Amino acid sequence: MPEFRQDLVTGDWVIMAQDRAHRPYDHGGGNSACPFCPHNEERTPPAVLTLEGDTGWSVRVVPNKYPALTPEGAVVDGRIGPYATRTGVGFHDVVVESPEHDLGLATYTVEHLAQVMAVWAERYSQLAADPRVQYVQILRNHGRRAGASREHPHSQIMAMPFVPDRVRLELNRAHSYWSTHNACMFCEMIEHELEAEARIVMADSEFVAMAPFAPKMPFETWILPVRHQASFGQLDSAGATALARVLGALAKAMNSTVSDVPHNLVLRTSPTQAAPDEWGSVHNSYHWRLEMVPRLSTPAGFEIGTGVFVNVATPEDAAKQLKTAICPV
Amino acid sequence: MPEFRQDLVTGDWVIMAQDRAHRPYDHGGGNSACPFCPHNEERTPPAVLTLEGDTGWSVRVVPNKYPALTPEGAVVDGRIGPYATRTGVGFHDVVVESPEHDLGLATYTVEHLAQVMAVWAERYSQLAADPRVQYVQILRNHGRRAGASREHPHSQIMAMPFVPDRVRLELNRAHSYWSTHNACMFCEMIEHELEAEARIVMADSEFVAMAPFAPKMPFETWILPVRHQASFGQLDSAGATALARVLGALAKAMNSTVSDVPHNLVLRTSPTQAAPDEWGSVHNSYHWRLEMVPRLSTPAGFEIGTGVFVNVATPEDAAKQLKTAICPV
Repeated sequence: MPEFRQDLVTGDWVIMAQDRAHRPYDHGGGNSACPFCPHNEERTPPAVLTLEGDTGWSVRVVPNKYPALTPEGAVVDGRIGPYATRTGVGFHDVVVESPEHDLGLATYTVEHLAQVMAVWAERYSQLAADPRVQYVQILRNHGRRAGASREHPHSQIMAMPFVPDRVRLELNRAHSYWSTHNACMFCEMIEHELEAEARIVMADSEFVAMAPFAPKMPFETWILPVRHQASFGQLDSAGATALARVLGALAKAMNSTVSDVPHNLVLRTSPTQAAPDEWGSVHNSYHWRLEMVPRLSTPAGFEIGTGVFVNVATPEDAAKQLKTAICPV
Repeated sequence: MPEFRQDLVTGDWVIMAQDRAHRPYDHGGGNSACPFCPHNEERTPPAVLTLEGDTGWSVRVVPNKYPALTPEGAVVDGRIGPYATRTGVGFHDVVVESPEHDLGLATYTVEHLAQVMAVWAERYSQLAADPRVQYVQILRNHGRRAGASREHPHSQIMAMPFVPDRVRLELNRAHSYWSTHNACMFCEMIEHELEAEARIVMADSEFVAMAPFAPKMPFETWILPVRHQASFGQLDSAGATALARVLGALAKAMNSTVSDVPHNLVLRTSPTQAAPDEWGSVHNSYHWRLEMVPRLSTPAGFEIGTGVFVNVATPEDAAKQLKTAICPV
């Protein structure tokens, strides 16, 4: 059983999950024995959500065989000497995004990528309905240097029994901004960026893709809904298609600019209904986004020590390159 | 010129340092052309501190040729639209630890490693005396996967014009603990750990090496002075020798347990005299430590999103293995 442990010095929680040490890696091994390929479905736990396609399934959500969190039991706090612990209760799903072993973000059709986004949103809402769940983290690791253990295109959905400090940090800042300005910090940032233009990768009436002003990594790019939306769970089917259009174009541009670099996709959204409401205005003050983080540099001793990242590529230059890849001048 | 930029959403600062994009990598290239080897001294900027050895220098501190921070000018805050900026003022030194290209933490004599530690402390105090400097980060990256760009054994000392949030986090928690318990959180933790024994790697009257209760990485190990000491700048020559004894033994044990794994050494210490004194009790409440962080797992989408790390190795098991490597039963 996984267990949460809290560091006394920083307050940071970690998940101790020894069973994950046994998970296999398949990079370069091809797809004959891939448990995510069609006809091998019995090699994963039974699906919790399946989207049917023309010939069999199109997208499958299965529990992770080597979970970092497990859904059994109650959330129980404990103490060992001066330290705090918590039972590792939660969910850890794998979204098998396609029956095709060799496709990915940059090669899916917009229709298929929209299906994946819609499955993310549907499973998000299912997990958010569990009263033990306070935060849902959707993520996608691509390439071994970005932490992926399998080649077959997949993403992950993890449901947590508390709101992590990293998430609280943004909620607090957004709440404080809203209290002072009576406006959403993100809406105002988007407005400024569309006006300034220098960091915009692409934008339509629904979504904007932009390099943030202070990116931790070269070519880091954020996708945000242009219209205010606090929770990813509010994404409807038209929204899924609009998001897929921008994400697919960004993935293609990334490939042609920095090649098939290992990267992470990280969703940042508001907490679920079960979370204690410390951010009264969260539906007004918070605004979800999807981050694409290419692993183009290695955080090292300075970053671990100070939390301050050194970035050798300006966001203005990165945005220009990505923009040109999408719309050659 | 490097520049600090602050992220609006998180408040995190990054350093934009485009010139560092041009730094060369020498891994596997051998030492014939190594700028850190003897007879190539003119290929680095002039040394700011040199320790003489029997035949030439023993340890050399030189300004980084591709600095993330530079010592010219004043610390000036700026604003671009809704965003905050700051001039990238500071210091970025390289400590060339030895004339020998192929030595390292695990192969230095204790006497030599003590010299390196003493040079760290001396240069720390020099930098801390600059009124623009509020925090000094000492670090050591070993292996390309841990962010090192050169093989020749070296460490880095970076001086910052403000106290980073990651550092403030610990100072605040330590201050709050001290206010409540009238005791140093770290002293009490060490006392508990020596009593509990399960996470102790080694200990003598001067230093303790221990696996933290909630490590972010497998085999992460902390070295702390047993007697209360807030700042690394207080390390004297006897302390340097005692620290070298423990660090050298730990490095050897790490090598024999997880082989020559890429790793970071990260010093965590109190701010310099120039820092605003928001932590009235900092000399009583804070307690420096040196962290050894082997890069045995890859932080991925979940860690980036939540700040919560998943660790597949318990600190109790890691400590046992390291302890056995130091003192075979």
